[in-house]
Amino acid sequence: MRIVIDGFGGDNVPLEPMKAAAAAVAEYGVEMIITGDCEKMKQCAEQNNINLEGITFYQADSVIPMDEEPTKILKVYSDCSMAVGLKLVADGEADAMVSAGSTGALLAGATFIVKRSKGIKRPVIATLIPTGGKRKFYLLIDSGANSDCRPEMLNQFAVMGTAYHKRILKSENPEVALVNIGVEEHKGCELQQQSYKLLKENSCINFIGNVEARELPNGGCDIAVCDGFTGNIVLKLTEGFAAFFTGVLKNIFYTNAATKAAYLLVSKPIKVFRKSMDSKEQGGAPILGVKKPVIKAHGNSDAKAFKNAIRQAKYCIEQDVCGEIERGVAQLKAEETADA
Amino acid sequence: MRIVIDGFGGDNVPLEPMKAAAAAVAEYGVEMIITGDCEKMKQCAEQNNINLEGITFYQADSVIPMDEEPTKILKVYSDCSMAVGLKLVADGEADAMVSAGSTGALLAGATFIVKRSKGIKRPVIATLIPTGGKRKFYLLIDSGANSDCRPEMLNQFAVMGTAYHKRILKSENPEVALVNIGVEEHKGCELQQQSYKLLKENSCINFIGNVEARELPNGGCDIAVCDGFTGNIVLKLTEGFAAFFTGVLKNIFYTNAATKAAYLLVSKPIKVFRKSMDSKEQGGAPILGVKKPVIKAHGNSDAKAFKNAIRQAKYCIEQDVCGEIERGVAQLKAEETADA
Repeated sequence: MRIVIDGFGGDNVPLEPMKAAAAAVAEYGVEMIITGDCEKMKQCAEQNNINLEGITFYQADSVIPMDEEPTKILKVYSDCSMAVGLKLVADGEADAMVSAGSTGALLAGATFIVKRSKGIKRPVIATLIPTGGKRKFYLLIDSGANSDCRPEMLNQFAVMGTAYHKRILKSENPEVALVNIGVEEHKGCELQQQSYKLLKENSCINFIGNVEARELPNGGCDIAVCDGFTGNIVLKLTEGFAAFFTGVLKNIFYTNAATKAAYLLVSKPIKVFRKSMDSKEQGGAPILGVKKPVIKAHGNSDAKAFKNAIRQAKYCIEQDVCGEIERGVAQLKAEETADA
Repeated sequence: MRIVIDGFGGDNVPLEPMKAAAAAVAEYGVEMIITGDCEKMKQCAEQNNINLEGITFYQADSVIPMDEEPTKILKVYSDCSMAVGLKLVADGEADAMVSAGSTGALLAGATFIVKRSKGIKRPVIATLIPTGGKRKFYLLIDSGANSDCRPEMLNQFAVMGTAYHKRILKSENPEVALVNIGVEEHKGCELQQQSYKLLKENSCINFIGNVEARELPNGGCDIAVCDGFTGNIVLKLTEGFAAFFTGVLKNIFYTNAATKAAYLLVSKPIKVFRKSMDSKEQGGAPILGVKKPVIKAHGNSDAKAFKNAIRQAKYCIEQDVCGEIERGVAQLKAEETADA
């Protein structure tokens, strides 16, 4: 199994992806390819004593900037570390890709270089979000790939999310809900109203109805389906609250000597909580609906986060998530045809 | 000054609205009207020793259920405690209205009974949300009135929010931002892209560009403008996180005897934090764009929350918020006409 990692995508490059690749070779027994400036990577490996066994460097002459127009990965930046990695996947030289570079560029590259799976309308980004309820996580899909969506797209997102959830989280019958502003069927805009009808009729998924955003932090469903605009609002607000609460906890315990003493007494449960909320523990966000696994790691990923993203890519390959999605979407299509 | 309160809207009725009305008469020197079943209110006052000085009961024969189709307030439930109160406002018998009943019904009633102010496309619900940053609050507008919006509506929301913020929060030049999935002008769907253009040209407001949801908990702007679907997602997710975080704190301190002891040391800063986050402290959410102040109190309001909502209604009357909004919208219209 060969996994390619973008050596120059993200904030901490190339050191952190390289450390992660070395650790992944040792721990997961995978082969790793790292794309980017080979000369720089060689120097970095020497300076940091990184064991390069099982690792291949693959030259890429540029890096696509985070704020660049995403589709520029296809022409102007076709030689960037991300594009070169995706081409290796498309050509069968590697089985999956991990990058912490621009989300938009990775999505465009995955869609047009690795290419969509058969029957997929739009690839989608799914993000696993930690919760405080009976479920440890919920899968937010779409968390930002497609701002404008049609109901048929949301119906496919539900199928893709279900396939991912079953295969990667080993759930038997994950509960799918539509993110909406009320629980009743008629709630929301045209998109939600029409999507509800399709989701209700979709026998490939376990649809439980609408979920209000209020229920999300407590794990109101396994899979929360929405358009990418709404999903991105939910994702970013969740990130904002995580940072906010960290600040609040700090303020509470930094008030005076007594509160600082109190911290010592609760530091263990606080660490447990922080770990459960730490996005670096989750790996990355998979781009679903393309022919091979592509994982978006967080921009500020360190070696631990990259390593978890590589582990996730490995699971996706082993569990044939892409195949499961293709079969799920084919089944949905067959049912729609039968109904028509 | 006469303020009417819906005696049977919300969870804790009629006792809590009645206690609040009595307290408001004593503290704010206002006259209060309470709508609903006069017999029940009389009994409730006797049983609870409520001083009825300055309070008038006004008979209403029904209560509109929370989950009823909102427009039913206009015909089927035209005799409900909410509709009767709104009619008193429309007829000039009262200067403002407070209700903790169904948001949709109150919005429909405010729009068609109290009626829209001149030039207003759609009335809107604005909610003041506590933050942890340099600002104590931000005003979320629309927080749920209009799921589907056009750019011109968002532009008016910005003007209405600015008028409210200036008059009620006494800010000189509140910063308005558009809730979006990135800071760049081209981000978001058609609605956000077109709204950005209008907001940028609008000289009646202090537009600072897009705000990402990540910045909201930290007070990224004074006024966050969005469609009612997005706003409701933001509002409910915020409520969900507030509850979630309370649960987390509880878990942290209930772990064992040592952590329980720790709580005693930090209970004061925790109480300060809780108070700053308590929606009951804020009063209610004003419905802006109608001819007289109408305040939506939270469904689970107690006497304190109702009293704060009454105080807010009083401020709106004193500060002529409705007039300020009408003038702002007229100025916007004049500028648009001049530009055309």
